Amino acid sequence: MIMSRIEAPRDEDDEATATAGGPADRLLVDRLLGGLPAEAVLTDPDVTASYANDMASFCPAGAPAVVVLPRTVEEVQHVMRTATELRVPVVPQGARTGLSGAANASDGCIVLSLTKMDRILEINPVDRVAVVEPGVVNAALSRAVGEHGLYYPPDPSSWEMCTIGGNIGTASGGLCCVKYGVTAEYVLGLDVVLADGRLMSTGRRTAKGVAGYDLTRLFVGSEGSLGIVVRAVLALRPKPPEQLVLAAEFASAAAACDAVCRIMEGGHVPSLLELMDRTTVKAVNDLARMGLPETTEALLLAAFDTPAPAADLAAVGALCEAAGATQVVPADDAAESELLLQARRLSLTALEAVKGTTMIDDVCVPRSRLGDMLEGIERIAEKYRLTIGVCAHAGDGNTHPTVCFDASDPDESRRARESFDEIMGLGLELGGTITGEHGVGVLKKEWLAREIGPVGLEMQRAVKQVFDPLGILNPGKLF
Amino acid sequence: MIMSRIEAPRDEDDEATATAGGPADRLLVDRLLGGLPAEAVLTDPDVTASYANDMASFCPAGAPAVVVLPRTVEEVQHVMRTATELRVPVVPQGARTGLSGAANASDGCIVLSLTKMDRILEINPVDRVAVVEPGVVNAALSRAVGEHGLYYPPDPSSWEMCTIGGNIGTASGGLCCVKYGVTAEYVLGLDVVLADGRLMSTGRRTAKGVAGYDLTRLFVGSEGSLGIVVRAVLALRPKPPEQLVLAAEFASAAAACDAVCRIMEGGHVPSLLELMDRTTVKAVNDLARMGLPETTEALLLAAFDTPAPAADLAAVGALCEAAGATQVVPADDAAESELLLQARRLSLTALEAVKGTTMIDDVCVPRSRLGDMLEGIERIAEKYRLTIGVCAHAGDGNTHPTVCFDASDPDESRRARESFDEIMGLGLELGGTITGEHGVGVLKKEWLAREIGPVGLEMQRAVKQVFDPLGILNPGKLF
Repeated sequence: MIMSRIEAPRDEDDEATATAGGPADRLLVDRLLGGLPAEAVLTDPDVTASYANDMASFCPAGAPAVVVLPRTVEEVQHVMRTATELRVPVVPQGARTGLSGAANASDGCIVLSLTKMDRILEINPVDRVAVVEPGVVNAALSRAVGEHGLYYPPDPSSWEMCTIGGNIGTASGGLCCVKYGVTAEYVLGLDVVLADGRLMSTGRRTAKGVAGYDLTRLFVGSEGSLGIVVRAVLALRPKPPEQLVLAAEFASAAAACDAVCRIMEGGHVPSLLELMDRTTVKAVNDLARMGLPETTEALLLAAFDTPAPAADLAAVGALCEAAGATQVVPADDAAESELLLQARRLSLTALEAVKGTTMIDDVCVPRSRLGDMLEGIERIAEKYRLTIGVCAHAGDGNTHPTVCFDASDPDESRRARESFDEIMGLGLELGGTITGEHGVGVLKKEWLAREIGPVGLEMQRAVKQVFDPLGILNPGKLF
Repeated sequence: MIMSRIEAPRDEDDEATATAGGPADRLLVDRLLGGLPAEAVLTDPDVTASYANDMASFCPAGAPAVVVLPRTVEEVQHVMRTATELRVPVVPQGARTGLSGAANASDGCIVLSLTKMDRILEINPVDRVAVVEPGVVNAALSRAVGEHGLYYPPDPSSWEMCTIGGNIGTASGGLCCVKYGVTAEYVLGLDVVLADGRLMSTGRRTAKGVAGYDLTRLFVGSEGSLGIVVRAVLALRPKPPEQLVLAAEFASAAAACDAVCRIMEGGHVPSLLELMDRTTVKAVNDLARMGLPETTEALLLAAFDTPAPAADLAAVGALCEAAGATQVVPADDAAESELLLQARRLSLTALEAVKGTTMIDDVCVPRSRLGDMLEGIERIAEKYRLTIGVCAHAGDGNTHPTVCFDASDPDESRRARESFDEIMGLGLELGGTITGEHGVGVLKKEWLAREIGPVGLEMQRAVKQVFDPLGILNPGKLF
């Protein structure tokens, strides 16, 4: 289908334009209203501006022309047909809890918020699948399937707010990944509205299926750049027993990383294996008076949701001691486990309190290189005279080095940005990736090219071209 | 890069051509010998003809011009550069144990056998990864990682012969999938030689990673139609305890399927859950005198590799009885478990003995529809006056209806083919897929279009075009 190129007219006198800094396009709005109810089309610039950003630092965002809140697949198709006809960029959004700027608006774009498509369409305990719309909140799905004795594992920190559509767009991880893997492993099939408004189904609702190329996985993590996910078939698991947690304190980060290696080499399958470095431990101690000794240079949290978790914790506790743990504290029950996890949950808030602003990195290395990564980050923090705290999904080798800085200090902001980049370079040197679970978005697009190389980049761009020949789907992200 | 179109000359007088029915192309062979040792280039038509087929029935195969057996990535690159330059189709092959004709030669093609690239490059117990060349035999890898206390789950029936490259090409499954999933879930990263000979790396060796589109998964199951996998990073798991097996006999297939639903709905995670229907049970009984009672209409095998498998078997045995099992036999130890599994292992051989030839289908339905699927297959067998035995990876809803026929009887052969198609149609009606784990190849390419629809087909073809603009990679497969 060849479409005539229509330039969207700009109405420079429009008050909305003056206020929001973006063109409120009457033709665009009129066309959208042809297939959407009035309450689903937001043009008030004060309102549309509130949809400009996700939660990433250092990522520019433009002013949307309009925000649409469709409730049906047909309405999404209408939005995409309109966008294709008028050549208007479309930025799909979930709850905007992302950390890479992938959901940031571009000037004059349609923000396509999927938050009103929030129905759980089916939960089937025999097939162990759920069928959902993209706006379903992760926690809502988790609770709903829990009532059927089922479990939807992916649990990003933002799980109480973030949507399944956003999780699919960014291929989110979480604390559970060391045992249960990432979002990608739970997406069996998708309904996708393509750039031109056509509807495509990918994948399956069966446990297995290999009919043709795996386009489902191509869409997972594509950050809204290939199409709009309007329905997902998700795999579920039986709900595991409640997990029991152990905390181990170490006199050095190296010893804690050694313990991680021993645990994984020993064939254990923890449901959680988290590490907090000295800076994070100190920040949490300062904020919440947790009473951790000042000599604690690293804290490791391990959990098991097996039928006999106490035995697993004992085995892992012994490995921690062999690696030099100064103290090992296994929880006796779920309540104690919850207390031990609080330190981890407070980490980001505590690090934010250090300097007011944080920039969270997401570098994943082979877990055998975790010690080298932490050592390198300490070196980088010294070099740039910055506080950098590290929380890590240690079992995955996935570190979240968090640069603490005063955003009102231009020099410190510059050093923060440079240290952030140097951490990614270190991750690549160690055989890792620039992003374990947060995605590329705007924040890391220059680094994506460095990670995947020129041939990979060329093929990825060519794949983008197949699905989005006009370049209207979340332009300026990823590449 | 624009390349001039060079028509490969055909030497009609060449003896090889006359013997093998395919053109032996001197220019092609000379060019190949420019970058491959002589022993890696086979042109004897008796030899090349032996590389024409995989193990599928009813799939046409052409006569290869040449078979190449490279040992290095550079040699594969040379083959692909040559093929691109001369516009010669390339058919990549592993052990040719596939069941859909995906590895069948086309006339005048280069058969690119990866069987000589069979080195295990690394096994890392901390990172739980193996790095392998594509020609490594599945069983060789399984044994090698086992020595490190590790486990590579994918276990197609041909695991003693099939290669990892072939498993990746077809996204193979096996008996383990109900607990451990398919090959796709164990492929973290790939090195791929593209159609033009360039090398591309995809994915990662870390536990997580979301940098750019997931091209790794795009290649898994692509049947050699997008590029040549020359190296794979595979995820491993800790070796589980040895599994304990239970056999349950039922007086109807419906009751056995009811038991499957109760087991999965009950939150159990068996390491194996297999079903054999009446026809298969009878064929195995006839072949091996297993002494199963004639009243057994279906046999269910369940296994657990948990720390306390006897307790799990007891719970599942009770569910089988509640569903109407006439007898429940749990194994006491590994040796007894092995005996119980023998019936399942003999199934295909036993069904082959019925009429001499079999045609194995691979339809996967939501497991809640397994009963409807079996009932429908019985109806189809009656309609076409054929013997159709069904083995099923019941926990996955993945059935292997096996049509038994006399290949020397044209009418029976026609009925076999028609019943095979009708079974796929039934699978689609029940919300399933035409292939759970065997792939599309030549056998099911007309059905792929029916399953994925015109929009899906258009996008899949466009993706193929990105990676193989000249159409030289395994042409005539999938689409």
